Amino acid sequence: MATTLQARPRIARRIARLGTETAFAVSGDAASWAAQGNRVYPFHLGDMNIRTPLNIIRAAYTAMVEGRTFYTPAAGIPQLREALAEALSEQRGVEYDATNVSVQPGGKPCIGKFLMAVMEPGDGVLYPNPGYPIYESQVDFLGGRGQPYTYTVEDGRFRIDRDSIQRAVDDTTRVLIVNAQHNPTGADASKAELEWLAELARERDLWVLSDDPYVDIRYAGNSHTIVEYEGMSERSVIGYTFSKKYAMTGWRLGAAIGPAHVVDIITKINTNDESCTNQFVQMAGVEALCGDQSGAENILSTLQGRRDLVVERLNAIDGVSVPASDATFYLFADVTDVYQRQGYSYTRAGDGQMFRVATMQETGVSFCARTHFGRALPGEERVYVRFAYSGIDENDAEEGLAALKRYWEG
Amino acid sequence: MATTLQARPRIARRIARLGTETAFAVSGDAASWAAQGNRVYPFHLGDMNIRTPLNIIRAAYTAMVEGRTFYTPAAGIPQLREALAEALSEQRGVEYDATNVSVQPGGKPCIGKFLMAVMEPGDGVLYPNPGYPIYESQVDFLGGRGQPYTYTVEDGRFRIDRDSIQRAVDDTTRVLIVNAQHNPTGADASKAELEWLAELARERDLWVLSDDPYVDIRYAGNSHTIVEYEGMSERSVIGYTFSKKYAMTGWRLGAAIGPAHVVDIITKINTNDESCTNQFVQMAGVEALCGDQSGAENILSTLQGRRDLVVERLNAIDGVSVPASDATFYLFADVTDVYQRQGYSYTRAGDGQMFRVATMQETGVSFCARTHFGRALPGEERVYVRFAYSGIDENDAEEGLAALKRYWEG
Repeated sequence: MATTLQARPRIARRIARLGTETAFAVSGDAASWAAQGNRVYPFHLGDMNIRTPLNIIRAAYTAMVEGRTFYTPAAGIPQLREALAEALSEQRGVEYDATNVSVQPGGKPCIGKFLMAVMEPGDGVLYPNPGYPIYESQVDFLGGRGQPYTYTVEDGRFRIDRDSIQRAVDDTTRVLIVNAQHNPTGADASKAELEWLAELARERDLWVLSDDPYVDIRYAGNSHTIVEYEGMSERSVIGYTFSKKYAMTGWRLGAAIGPAHVVDIITKINTNDESCTNQFVQMAGVEALCGDQSGAENILSTLQGRRDLVVERLNAIDGVSVPASDATFYLFADVTDVYQRQGYSYTRAGDGQMFRVATMQETGVSFCARTHFGRALPGEERVYVRFAYSGIDENDAEEGLAALKRYWEG
Repeated sequence: MATTLQARPRIARRIARLGTETAFAVSGDAASWAAQGNRVYPFHLGDMNIRTPLNIIRAAYTAMVEGRTFYTPAAGIPQLREALAEALSEQRGVEYDATNVSVQPGGKPCIGKFLMAVMEPGDGVLYPNPGYPIYESQVDFLGGRGQPYTYTVEDGRFRIDRDSIQRAVDDTTRVLIVNAQHNPTGADASKAELEWLAELARERDLWVLSDDPYVDIRYAGNSHTIVEYEGMSERSVIGYTFSKKYAMTGWRLGAAIGPAHVVDIITKINTNDESCTNQFVQMAGVEALCGDQSGAENILSTLQGRRDLVVERLNAIDGVSVPASDATFYLFADVTDVYQRQGYSYTRAGDGQMFRVATMQETGVSFCARTHFGRALPGEERVYVRFAYSGIDENDAEEGLAALKRYWEG
């Protein structure tokens, strides 16, 4: 009845502060375009088109058949907590044990739960922008004050813009979010950058989220994260995920790892929000960490082949320049010259989306734009777009980038 | 370093409002007692010791092997949303389509997400007490005003105490939580009770959470839920779970089903909190709903056999009386006479826990007490404990209840 519909109660005001991942709209555009019979080259996805290693699948199936289909403790099964503590201790050079680990249904849950645990309304939170949009969304939703910092290109690589942090930080700042292997720029934090951030965190007594989904996705050198530095492990929570290293995006398995008193709170939020993580998926996680690693090695080598190809082909396009990246599966390409040549303006609203959509419709190449990684900051003058190579094979990438070259140079 | 440890930043104040499921402490007690070599008869669990039907396990495995291991839309895969809409439309007599369904990693996530979407801080929320403790915890955590209502025994069955609702409701009341097939009492809301609640919701323009995990666990008659009544579907969100009907507790699969504009908000919270639910688990959910139902029928008949046995054996104990229950897998037994005979006092703090632990140590029978389902209300004079028969076979139940009879009558 119309009267009842009019009378239906209102939505809570907090929802007005809730953001989202606008990049999903790009997936929607690409799917619609493909559904109309067009070829799409998906460089927009943060997802992977690589199979989960079979030993991990077998472990999940065996657990299911053995009847491991009931609830687990909210913090996860002891075997997985122990395996994670051991793996992370070795990798990060910090002594973790099972009490430092709270298993989560993915890496993403760590962000909101960490902020709930440590951030008061009104607290300032330093986070990367461009960056994973859920940082900004959760800070806003939970009543924090977002303090974005940015990246600049130095010697052909993206680096954290320390000046932007100095400008953003103030007396309200209580939390620092670090994404050392960085989405969307593909930047890889150096020891010097991390040491500088660690000093800032010590001086200002900040909580730190070390959100490291891409820590194991690297093609040269070694990954470093902020927890390695003095005084950091007791104030940092690591957001860990199985999604990328083991191609387990859709399995939803991750963990929050940090000081036991904070991890216990995160586990208490699990008890309230989702009870626990799927039991046989946790058993598969034990196999992923402790079993045969050749699957993970193959995934990495597949990604490296794609990285080499995509970097070369993008840089071969007149007007495109890709800062070097040895980590993640993202490339943040400077396309300013193409953009201007095609008559788009950085300052005109809507031009970025028009450029993206026109490129997809002319070439099939679909990618995310700057706007999908947070509100643009004052002073940004170059136009960047993100190419993800996690969801597209080399042959398709080659074909798509050839079409892109013709269109962008034409 | 000690100075750094002292300096570590503080936890957010909101965490002081976060409750938990204290029943997990009972599981801990039982596990410790068993680890010391003692026999335990687990009547405390809300979990199940029954296998997930094999056709559901096979569907998950097939999906995994076919590579369905990547992300899904935040609201879930279309096939599962459609299957749920169809199943719920038929069961509840409301026209739902896929836009009314947001797949969740379990039934529990519906509670917090629904409250985030509709409840302002300071809003009154009517919820059952005794009841599932997460209602109270989430209301408190999100800044609502908990307004507990209770149950009374009428004609040998638990019924909603309408007077307690009349006393609790006030001008701040904005939300009503209904758990029609009720944990812990095993009560099963009648049409008259639901019509009365629906009228209250219409008159006061309330949002309604129809939290129905046990809707399919019943041994006689038909289940009814509040969404069937006039004006309810547009103000109600159903909390649905696969956990009980299909013995899938540890799979973590459920859904929020309601008006599209609220469900869209719940989905947006998914995007922020956990991205999506495991893809191959969602495929298994499609098989559960649309495939062979003999597994679900076997589960129900197993539970009915246990119910019949446990009711008979409990009522045969002098001083124990079990209100009749045709739904859920819980029995809320009045043990006041045993309690007093053993010298415990209802008004003396700690006596309830002593009674529970002493019984476990003397007989191995482990159960939850009143206190595990919310803060006791003024005027409660009878002592109830909850026997769950979802996690114990008939033979073990028989053995345990024989020991219980000897001890409680002795």
